[in-house]
Parts: sequence; structure tokens; C-alpha cells
Amino acid sequence: MNTTFQIREEVCRRQHQSSLRQSTMGTMKSLSAADVKITDGFWRQQMDLMEDVVIPFQEDKLHDRDEDSTSEPSGAIRNFRIAAGLEAGEYHGMVFQDSDVAKWLEAVAYSLMDRPDDQLQSRADEVIDLIGQAQHPDGYLNTYFTIKEPNKRWTNLRRDHELYCAGHMLEAAVAYYEATGRRKLLDIMIRMVDHIDQMFGPEEHKRKGYPGHEEIELALFRLYNITNDPKHFGLAKYFLDQRGQEPHYYEIEAAERGETQSDYVGVNHSYSQAHLPVRQQNTAEGHSVRAMYLFSAMADLAAHDDAKMAAACRTLWDNVVNRRMYVTGGVGSIAHGEAFTVDYDLPSDLAYTETCAAIGLAFWARRMLNLELNGEYADVMERALYNGVISGISQDGRKFFYVNPLAVWPDAAEHRHDHRHVKTERQGWFGCACCPPNLARAVASIGHYMYASNDEQLAIHLYGSSKTQVEFAGTPVAVTQTTQYPWDGSITIAIDPTQAVQFQLLLRCPGWAQQVKLLVNGEEQELQTILQSGYLVLERTWAPGDQVQLMLGMEPHWIYADPQIRAASGRVALQRGPIVYCLEEVDNGSNLDALVVPAGVECSVQTDNQRFPMPIPIIQFNVLREQWPTDGSPYSSQAPQTVIEEATAVPYFLWNNRGRGELTVWLRQQR
Amino acid sequence: MNTTFQIREEVCRRQHQSSLRQSTMGTMKSLSAADVKITDGFWRQQMDLMEDVVIPFQEDKLHDRDEDSTSEPSGAIRNFRIAAGLEAGEYHGMVFQDSDVAKWLEAVAYSLMDRPDDQLQSRADEVIDLIGQAQHPDGYLNTYFTIKEPNKRWTNLRRDHELYCAGHMLEAAVAYYEATGRRKLLDIMIRMVDHIDQMFGPEEHKRKGYPGHEEIELALFRLYNITNDPKHFGLAKYFLDQRGQEPHYYEIEAAERGETQSDYVGVNHSYSQAHLPVRQQNTAEGHSVRAMYLFSAMADLAAHDDAKMAAACRTLWDNVVNRRMYVTGGVGSIAHGEAFTVDYDLPSDLAYTETCAAIGLAFWARRMLNLELNGEYADVMERALYNGVISGISQDGRKFFYVNPLAVWPDAAEHRHDHRHVKTERQGWFGCACCPPNLARAVASIGHYMYASNDEQLAIHLYGSSKTQVEFAGTPVAVTQTTQYPWDGSITIAIDPTQAVQFQLLLRCPGWAQQVKLLVNGEEQELQTILQSGYLVLERTWAPGDQVQLMLGMEPHWIYADPQIRAASGRVALQRGPIVYCLEEVDNGSNLDALVVPAGVECSVQTDNQRFPMPIPIIQFNVLREQWPTDGSPYSSQAPQTVIEEATAVPYFLWNNRGRGELTVWLRQQR
Repeated sequence: MNTTFQIREEVCRRQHQSSLRQSTMGTMKSLSAADVKITDGFWRQQMDLMEDVVIPFQEDKLHDRDEDSTSEPSGAIRNFRIAAGLEAGEYHGMVFQDSDVAKWLEAVAYSLMDRPDDQLQSRADEVIDLIGQAQHPDGYLNTYFTIKEPNKRWTNLRRDHELYCAGHMLEAAVAYYEATGRRKLLDIMIRMVDHIDQMFGPEEHKRKGYPGHEEIELALFRLYNITNDPKHFGLAKYFLDQRGQEPHYYEIEAAERGETQSDYVGVNHSYSQAHLPVRQQNTAEGHSVRAMYLFSAMADLAAHDDAKMAAACRTLWDNVVNRRMYVTGGVGSIAHGEAFTVDYDLPSDLAYTETCAAIGLAFWARRMLNLELNGEYADVMERALYNGVISGISQDGRKFFYVNPLAVWPDAAEHRHDHRHVKTERQGWFGCACCPPNLARAVASIGHYMYASNDEQLAIHLYGSSKTQVEFAGTPVAVTQTTQYPWDGSITIAIDPTQAVQFQLLLRCPGWAQQVKLLVNGEEQELQTILQSGYLVLERTWAPGDQVQLMLGMEPHWIYADPQIRAASGRVALQRGPIVYCLEEVDNGSNLDALVVPAGVECSVQTDNQRFPMPIPIIQFNVLREQWPTDGSPYSSQAPQTVIEEATAVPYFLWNNRGRGELTVWLRQQR
Repeated sequence: MNTTFQIREEVCRRQHQSSLRQSTMGTMKSLSAADVKITDGFWRQQMDLMEDVVIPFQEDKLHDRDEDSTSEPSGAIRNFRIAAGLEAGEYHGMVFQDSDVAKWLEAVAYSLMDRPDDQLQSRADEVIDLIGQAQHPDGYLNTYFTIKEPNKRWTNLRRDHELYCAGHMLEAAVAYYEATGRRKLLDIMIRMVDHIDQMFGPEEHKRKGYPGHEEIELALFRLYNITNDPKHFGLAKYFLDQRGQEPHYYEIEAAERGETQSDYVGVNHSYSQAHLPVRQQNTAEGHSVRAMYLFSAMADLAAHDDAKMAAACRTLWDNVVNRRMYVTGGVGSIAHGEAFTVDYDLPSDLAYTETCAAIGLAFWARRMLNLELNGEYADVMERALYNGVISGISQDGRKFFYVNPLAVWPDAAEHRHDHRHVKTERQGWFGCACCPPNLARAVASIGHYMYASNDEQLAIHLYGSSKTQVEFAGTPVAVTQTTQYPWDGSITIAIDPTQAVQFQLLLRCPGWAQQVKLLVNGEEQELQTILQSGYLVLERTWAPGDQVQLMLGMEPHWIYADPQIRAASGRVALQRGPIVYCLEEVDNGSNLDALVVPAGVECSVQTDNQRFPMPIPIIQFNVLREQWPTDGSPYSSQAPQTVIEEATAVPYFLWNNRGRGELTVWLRQQR
């Protein structure tokens, strides 16, 4: 039909690359999760899973009330009880065990925004009371040092995660205040921030330290958004500015401890992104979660009119997204140091791609969108959220992947010491349980990633059935998305101002979309002229009852990789909408590397009701299976024979919900 | 031309699989290296390198006389001086440092067989005198325990390599006796064997131990071949029979030390092939060098009419060669434990494929040929010797690979902790310097691998310019091979009995040979009828001046792998004669995985005089290089573009003689 407008991907990409910086559009601010109601569909299911299953499950875990004796105990709440003097005992867990409680509390806050629950809130208040009891009179709060090493506070910033834990608790405090209006945790954490501010800073009598694991920087920017207190902004900025400066703080503190820097895993400081001042960093190095949290805070600071920082953010973004990111939105190519390695080194089976790192990439992308509106940031945010983030959790909400590889051959992986970080099935809980509560808080606040606005514009970054309200020139505007996205590409957006009002509605046009159609009140729009940096810009006076319909083509498409990504050479991935698909052994038999996708093969999409608890579009296509004619030598001058089979691809994030088996994202392709 | 007889590989393979066990041919015995003179060509060059460079270089290293301060000191001779009381000092090196001296002495013995040298012999005699001085009155000989832990002799067979060192010194003693007729080292080692025999054995008062690292078993069989002393045979057999029996000796000795078995790397005993009695083992497990030495000794014992052991050897052979061996003849798929993993797990970049393991595979193959004449054993022996063995040494004889991967991307490998065992350039010497002297003794005794005989038959397993003499019915027969093999496929064999005599000449018909032609005194032979188990059997009365000409087609051929070898899926290797070729960055630019071999591409072979010190046939062919059109996203729905380039392949064993760079053996193929 001739009214359908086709946008080839390269058009989208070119548009993406011409940033909106040259345009007249101002920067934006994400709407709060509290202001966005997820009403239905994909993210509603995910949030229900978090609120019905994951948050209660984690509450039990943190309190060690769960009955699963096979998974590792947490001890996190008990640590606070011991630190508060309410119980005798030994500290249990990692040095950053407190942060599990913080992340859970933050998830609870989002849950309460979504679904007020007096009982849950009162239990959370009890935990907050306990946290207050564990706080020292000077504001210091950290159960590890309170219980185990009271004389070693602040002596090993590089390793000991005190600022990291403070950062997470601060994020929880801000979110809980936003959700409930209750200040108790916020006040606790403002006292802790005061304490930190007395310890660290540019003034001569203060120490020149900064966290080994970044996190408090972005938390302080969140605090500043509430308090507007320059001290809070200044401390965050100090931590960023001081990072990687000479003389090097980690060496100073190591010398004070009587150690050398070689006593630590990241001897060259890049493990903690402290090898250079942050504005001079131009490649993503070291621990990938730390890097994502740092870059997020850098983007926060850059949005406060720091052009050099903005340039550093863009350079690092280019390095990560164009050279060090998996097609699933995962980052981190190696287990040792949970780290980035070198450009294009993205092995499928040895990937680390920690769930938390993909979450961190979404954090960063959302902030980059506030720094400058460009669909590329939203594309990456969406890629991470729908793939490498939620692959971290099982469909029943009770099992988790810390590591999310793109190819798994369980028989080998379970036998290979160099694959020991790869679990071939999700686990119930881990000693280092950072990912489960991180997932809970990320998914429970998904509304925060969907919309952004300023005085003249409303941008929709992510599609999903939801409601929000914005205001332009004093006129409230109700916005309602109705869609079965990402399974279906049709999105209806009701724009309902209380009276006619002019503003720009910016609809993200995903980079993957090869067919796009846009109707405003039933009238098809010419897209080429309104596409700016990956967004379709509808500038008009909106009237009550206006309706926008966006239709994104949902044809499955094969993704090729730059041949410099050697692990994907000769291979293709399969994507439909934002969802990356994969092959699993349970659908396709063993040895997925014996399957070859013929050139130009047709894909058929069917809604499957059998494989998963909910209906899911699966993708089927013919493949050639290579077979070896002999039981003898595995080497021969005779090529393998091939037979035609039908392959079935399922969404990557759903893999391993049907038992142990092989996985592959990158499929061999005939070419 | 219609006289050329073509044998397709599958015919060869089928023939190979019908073993000679059903035939009337008896078992054979390898000719001694002392009885084979390597006169010219490939192995003459390799032996000259060993004798002119490697053996003197190693002599300097062992004496710490070398001037290369960058490589690790050896301390091996000095350990003997300290143990002998001639010098004060601390033991230096690995617990098995003595074995470096043993392997060097064994190489010296072969060198003296090849090229008598009074000065070298007298220096070796001095070392032997020193060894004698380090021996205890009770026969015990091991400098580590003499110097460092005199009270802990024989307390940790699993870990401490005492029997391993004894085995190597025993091999040296046998070889030195065979080379020079001098008994001193032999007598030293017979006293040590007597001491061991008093410690270990089935008798009630003896300990039920056996070595953690196998080696002494095959050495004892070599000793028995000289002494014919049933005690020597019996001790070897005891070590084999006792291995893996319950109650488990390693647990008994661990308990005596007050340790648990979990204090050791191989907690399930398979690391040392001690998880089951050897006749019940049917997969190759654990440390690959240990496995090869064990299986070699098992084949030695099997040849003494032990059918159950012979069956175990064949089962293990099938497992290794058909499911756990690289196309280079390397074995060992993982660095952790230097070990086998699971069937078909043969990653190119993470390969361990220790030089010593490929040497051990050649040891085992030669013994299997004596157990039963079957070309498959010789094919594997040749594959290992020309590829995974000699890749361990640089062309100047001064640098060595311990690990021999099939694909190297240096930028990533040097950055990845999981690749830290992979050196991207050969090294001068290592702390654990087992491979360099092992290479020296293997190459210096190459004649031992070429011929075997019994009363009625002479088999030629390997081709290379050489001379030997055998005797049939009392008639001496001079045999002279003249050939430029493996670079050229034409082999002339002069059979020159002093008078006419009947015997069978068996010429190996390599499994890779697709064109074979055989002339006897100029008369072409019909091959189909005389091909038995991979050997062409010429039964006739041979007369003085007879001449056989074997012509093996040397067309390069592409090798496909069983798709269960996932690392080679969609890929081909290139072989010419027995030589596996590879691509290097220096010839083909970076990113060898961007190159695709077109279907049906023609290869051209040219003799190259530039790349290496000697003329080498290189193979050239067109490839498609995939290119990515953009600097932006590495993921796109657009396929990479391709350009045609000419690729140059060089022999795998010669890789990294021209500096650091990428390597690949398995090339992507269009299919």
C-alpha cells in the first residue's frame, strides 16, 4: 500500500549520527517512575513478577527466612542487627553486603510508587529503623567496618566499598522519600554524606580519596536533585574530578597501609577506571559495572554545562557501543576483573556480560538522553533492557544469572576451568548477590526510562502500555500509550490536554525499524521531514482527544557484525523489534554450531503458547545441519553432508527457562 | 596418464580400519636410532639444528653459563653439585629439575649415535660422574629431596616426580649405553631401579605406590630390552597394574601426610590417570603429557602378549585420535591441569597442546605400530612430528613454545587472563623447561621412528633421506631412501642385499595421499591388491641394486572437521603432504577471521626463498576479505562487503618466525 513509508536502517543511522546538539531542542529530564504508571503488557508483567515474587523473595533472603537450604545465606539484615547491638554474632558476607539491603529498599520504593502497600511499607520502615540504629553518632554507616574492622574505616577506598554501599543506600533513601514522602532514611543518609564530606574533598585537611567502586557519585547527583544543596553537588563533582589524579590516592593509601599497589588485582588502576583523570579517558577500561556507574555520573555532571565532560562521555560512549558491546547490550568481555578487554574482543562463550553491567549501561544511556536527545542512546538502552538485563532472571523470578554469555555448550563449559564463571543454569542466590536486587530496582523503575520532558517537549524513549501526565504552559496533558510492544509494533498514544496547547511530541524511531508509519488523528505523516536524530518530531497544538498511532514493522531481521568482532565472523544474529533471539538445544537438538542459515532464508513468526508461561512470538526458518558421515577420523578432505531442518528461535532473555542445554545467539550463515 | 593409480582417501581409510591383526604379518620392532643414518633433507636439517645449536645451548643453560640474563636460570647442574657435596647452596627450580639434565643427556646420546664427538662425550661423562656423586649409597638419586627434604623421600608420589625423574634418567642411561657402550650411567640407574624395586611392589612389605607423572614405566621397558631382567619388566608391569586400584594409594599417602586428597589439583585422580585401573580406562583424561607417557608404556606391555591391555590401548587411541586431537597432532584442550577435557572440545585459541604432549603422542604411536602395523598410527605419528612437535622450536633453535595454539590474536590474547598460558612469541627458556630438551631428544632420535622390522619384513613408516641396514635369513640388506620429502612426494628407495633374499618391504601409504604411484625397478605396481592396513606390501626376492620408487601426490588439500568440533565449524584447514599450513598476519594482514576461502578455489604452490632461511613451498589462493563499511555501529542488517585478495599460507610449524602477529589454522570457508 503506497501510504506506507519505508525507512531503511541506514537512513535512521545517518539521522542518529547527526546529533540534536545542532538543533534548537533543549535538554530534557526523565520523568520520575512515580509519575509513570505501567498499565499493561510486557513491562507490567515484568513489574508484577518483581513486586509479587522477587521483592518478597529477596526480603526473605536478606532476612535469611527462606527455606532454600541449597542457596547461600545472605546475612545482610543480621549484619545490621549485629552492628546495631541488637544481636551478637559475626559479620557475614561480602564487604559490600549492606548494598543488597539498599538495592532491595530502592526496589521497594519503586514498588510502593507503583502499588501502595502499607504492610510492605511498614516492614521497610522497620528495616530503615534498624539501619538508623546501626548508624554511628558521627554519621558513619557500614556494618562491615562497624562489626569487623572498626579501626579501619576509610583506610582502603580502593577495595572496601564503603562509598559504594553509601551510594546505594543514598539512592534507596532518595527513592523511598520520593515514593513515600518519609524522610527517615534520607536524613540518615544526609548525615552519612555530611560525614563523608568531612572526610574527603579539596580542602587541605581533607583526604583526597574517591571510591574504588563508583556509585556514590550518581547517588549524590540524585540527592542534589532533591536538596539542591551545593555541598551534595560539590562532593559528587569532587569524586569525579579527583579520580585518576596524581599523586595517586590509591598509592597514597596503600603506602599508609604499608602495602604496595601490586597487592591488588588491578595493579594499573584501570580496574577502577582510575588510570587517568576521567576527562582524559577515551576507552572503557576495567570492571564493567564500575565503568557504567562512573560514566552515568559523568553524564549527570556533563548535563550541568560541563562541555569537556560531555565530550568525554561521548568518546567513551562511542568506544563502548561501537567496539566493546555485545549485540545483547551486555558489556564486559572477561571474567578476570569482570572487565572490558580490547576493542572488538567479544567472545560469545567467554563473555562476562554481568547482568549489573547491562543495567549500568541502561543507567548511562538514560542519562545520555538527558544530555542530548539522540535515538542511538535510546536504541542501546532498549537493547540492554530487553536482552542483557532481563536475561538475568528466570521466568519464575527465583533464579538469576550473574553472567550472560551468548553461547553455551554445557558439556564443555562445565568441564573447563576457564569457563567456571559461566553457569549453565540460573542459580537461586549467590554469595555476591548484587545482580538480583539490582534487577529488581531497575525493572521496578522502568517508567523512569520511558519518558522525558522539558518546557516545550515530551519525548517517548520506550514504548509500552502506560500513563503519565505532563504540563505545558500550565496545561496538564494526559498521555496514554496502549500497545502490545515489543511483541507487536502498533502503538497508540492518546494525547489529552485539558485544553489545546502547543508542544513538541518526540517519538523515538528505533534504529532497527525498517518500516515505520505514523498517523496523527488518522492522518498519515510524511516522516522524512520530521525525523531528527532518531526521533519523529510532531510539533502542533494538541487538543483533547488527539490520538497518535505509530506502527513499527516487526519483520525479523538478520544482524551482521563488523568482521573485527571475530567471534561473530561468518555469523548472524536474529532480531525482531528490540528482542534478540537465540537458538536453544531444547528446540533444535545438540550442536547448534552444526546449523547453517541459508542465504536469503524466509523466517516465519508464530505465537507460541507451549514453551513459556505466556504467549511468545517464536521465529522459525530452515537451516542446513551438517553431518559427519563416519565414526572414525574427525578430519577429512570430504565436506560434511547437510540435511535441511527447521530451526526455532526464541527470545534470548528467555533462554534456560526449560532446563540445561546449549545456547547460541550468533548463528553460522551461508555466505 | 592411465598408469597413474589414484587412491581416494576413503579407500585408504577403509583399509586402515581393517587392521593387520587378521593378517599373517607378525609384530615388528622399531629400528634403533643408532642403526639409521639421516643423510639429507628435512630431518637432517632439524637434527643439525639440534646438534649444532639446541644441545650446546641447553648444555649452557643447564650449567647456567648462558649470557641471556632475560631468560630464567636453570640451576639443574648446580643442583647435582650441591647434592654431591661439591658446592654449597639452595636447590633451584621445579621439583623435577633433574629431568632436564636427563633429557639433555638422552639427546646427547642420539647426537653421538649420529655424529661421534669426543669432546661432547667427555663433557657428558663429566655430567654422569657428577650424577654418580649425587647418588646415595642406597641407590637413591634425586637432588630435590637430597638437598631440600631429605626426610620426605617417597612420601608424595602423586606430586613429587621422583619416579618421573628416575624414568628420564633411566631413558638417558639406556640411550647413552646404546650410543657409547659406556655403562656408568646405566649402572647408576640400575642401582636406583633396585632401590625403587625394594620400595614398591606387590609383596606385602612393599609400598603400593606408582608415579604421579608417568614416565618410569616406559623407561623400565627400555631397560628390560637391554637387560632382559624380569625384575625390570615386573616393576614396570606392577606400576601399570597397580595404577588406579583401590584402596587408592594417593589417598593412603595423603592420609599418612595428614592431608586430604582435596589438597591437590586433581582431586578426582584423573589428573594423573589414576581414576580407574588402566585396563578399564576408555577415555583420555587429565594431564595430557602424563596420559601420553602412560599409554606408551601400556602399548609396550601390550606388545608382550597382553590382549586386554592391547584392547585398552586401542580404545584409548580411538578416543584420543578421533575425538580429542587437534589437526596439528596436538593434544590437551585446556591450560588448567594441562589437560584433556571432553570429546570434540578443541578450541583453537584456548588450546594447550603442549609441545611435550605432541611428542608423547608420537612416542605412543610408534609403540602402537609395533603392537600392530596399521597406517593410522603412522599417519598420526607423522602428523604430530611435522606439526605440533616441531612448532615448539624457532628456526634459530633458541626459542620455544610450551603451548601451541591453532589461532592467536595477540592483541586480545595478551590482554586476556584466560589466555595467559598462550605466549604470542616463543620464549628463550622457561622455569618449567620440559619441552626444549624433550624436543631435542625426540628430533635427535627421529631415525627410531622411520623403520621397523621382524624376521620377514621391513616397514618404512616415515620417509626421509636415510640409510639403514637390516638382515633377512642372514643376508645383510642395505636400504637407502633418497627424497626431498615432505616438500616433494617422490621417494627413491634402494634395496641392496649382498645377495638375493626374500622378504616383504612394507611402504606406508599415507592417509592424506590422494595420488600414489609405485615402481619397482621401473615397473609400475598395481596398488589395490597390495595395500594392507595402510601399507603397500612388496613381497619378493630382492636382488642387489633393486630400486623402488614411490610417488605421493603433493596437491594441497582442504581438510574439513567433524561439525562436533565446534571450533572448526564452517572452517577448513589446509594440508600439503603431512604439513598443516596456516595463515599469518605478516603475510595476510590483520584479522584473519575476516578472510573467507571461496568454494572450489584453486591453490598454487610456489617455492619461496624469502620468508625463511631455507626454501619452503608456500600455498597461495584467492580469498574474500569481508569489510565493514562504517566506523559506527558494529551491528547492522547490511552484510559486510567483500573484496578479493590473495592469501599466502605457510607451514604451521614455521609460524611466529617473523615476529608477533595473528595466526589461524582453521580458515572460514564459503559453504
